[in-house]
Amino acid sequence: MRTVRMLVAYDGTEFHGWQRQPGWRTVQGVLEAALGAVLGVEGLTLQGAGRTDAGVHARGQVASFRAELPLPARALAPALAPRLPEDVRVLAAIEAPDDFDARRSAISRCYSYRLLREPDPLFGRFAWRPARWPAEDALQAASGVLVGEHDFSSFRSAGSTPSSPVCRVTRAEWRAWEGGLLLDITADRFLYRMVRSIVGTALAASVGADPAGRMRAILAARDRAAASATAPARALCFERAFYPGESA
Amino acid sequence: MRTVRMLVAYDGTEFHGWQRQPGWRTVQGVLEAALGAVLGVEGLTLQGAGRTDAGVHARGQVASFRAELPLPARALAPALAPRLPEDVRVLAAIEAPDDFDARRSAISRCYSYRLLREPDPLFGRFAWRPARWPAEDALQAASGVLVGEHDFSSFRSAGSTPSSPVCRVTRAEWRAWEGGLLLDITADRFLYRMVRSIVGTALAASVGADPAGRMRAILAARDRAAASATAPARALCFERAFYPGESA
Repeated sequence: MRTVRMLVAYDGTEFHGWQRQPGWRTVQGVLEAALGAVLGVEGLTLQGAGRTDAGVHARGQVASFRAELPLPARALAPALAPRLPEDVRVLAAIEAPDDFDARRSAISRCYSYRLLREPDPLFGRFAWRPARWPAEDALQAASGVLVGEHDFSSFRSAGSTPSSPVCRVTRAEWRAWEGGLLLDITADRFLYRMVRSIVGTALAASVGADPAGRMRAILAARDRAAASATAPARALCFERAFYPGESA
Repeated sequence: MRTVRMLVAYDGTEFHGWQRQPGWRTVQGVLEAALGAVLGVEGLTLQGAGRTDAGVHARGQVASFRAELPLPARALAPALAPRLPEDVRVLAAIEAPDDFDARRSAISRCYSYRLLREPDPLFGRFAWRPARWPAEDALQAASGVLVGEHDFSSFRSAGSTPSSPVCRVTRAEWRAWEGGLLLDITADRFLYRMVRSIVGTALAASVGADPAGRMRAILAARDRAAASATAPARALCFERAFYPGESA
């Protein structure tokens, strides 16, 4: 048995998220079926660094599995390519240490969220146009408050598996991209719909006189009802995951 | 009768180009049908600034038509929105002078062509990854040769309506975009598949010792056989059109 680590990218538009679910087209389901066919095994299970929701994209998802390999790990990506649909790509595959697990071993995850300034049929597939265009400095003031270790209960949607609400956010920066503004956010872990809740709430807070103070109060409330609407899934992208010994 | 000028954007992936053709889904066809329904007229004909090919996108296509208007021109975009599919948008509509014709009145057109450095399911929809990654300065040297008024027969594909092969290119600049490199090219007019021929040929010329000299020789040949393969449609986007009195 060997352990393989894969780098995976997908356009999440037509997927019902990462996680395998009977009767739904999911990234994990599609990848496991293609891997099973290439390796000639059944019941193979992938671990993913981030269990992205329906409609969320990925450019640097990490997935791992253990199996007998009839070919070198580096030959997996080209072997999988003809068996995968256009909207999911295995960018690379390498052998990893026996105990590597893409989900449990990850020490941090990085997401982007793209705001679109003008309607644009090209970028509209992976960006969202808010009703009112925000000021970058106000967004930054609101989001900057979140950096550090906090209880993020105010930014967790219902429907998630119970787990600790404490996350350590190491970066939360807004910057310009071609279509508008983008939130670049890194944390050791994220709660259910946390980035989308942060974006929706930062947008609402950015309109007021004291975006940082407003955000600080919402964070301190530890109550989802204190925050604002969750921003749409299609503008969220899993950018990459970091593992021990890899610099963030 | 009034003349209306519309700004139109579309994701060309699922369209068989701009121009109406019986039995095909085209941007002109879809827009004319929606306009006919909103205005309660039949046989309305749109003029487009650029007759984009199948798979080519637009962010600033200009289209005009003449009709009796039961509503102000500025109310057209919102009225059309619910009748248009997700992949085409009328961004704005205004009344124009009687003799305005989006195609004949245009004095220049601007296209972009996006090269993608790494496979990316998000950007892959509107960018193309060449087999070998080019050097930006070599691409620029090759393309810069084209600025000016020239006979572009070497960069015209067969299958077009006969017309003068002379075009005046006022800009041909490569610059970085998030996914790689982008050609920003403006001319008074473009021949059939001219931008895609230029990109394919500039890529081939960029590999050699003298990209500018090679491109100059191909241009002087006035023969399509002298140029290289046409680059794929999906990375091409009609960015905007300019009319008299508007600065380029």
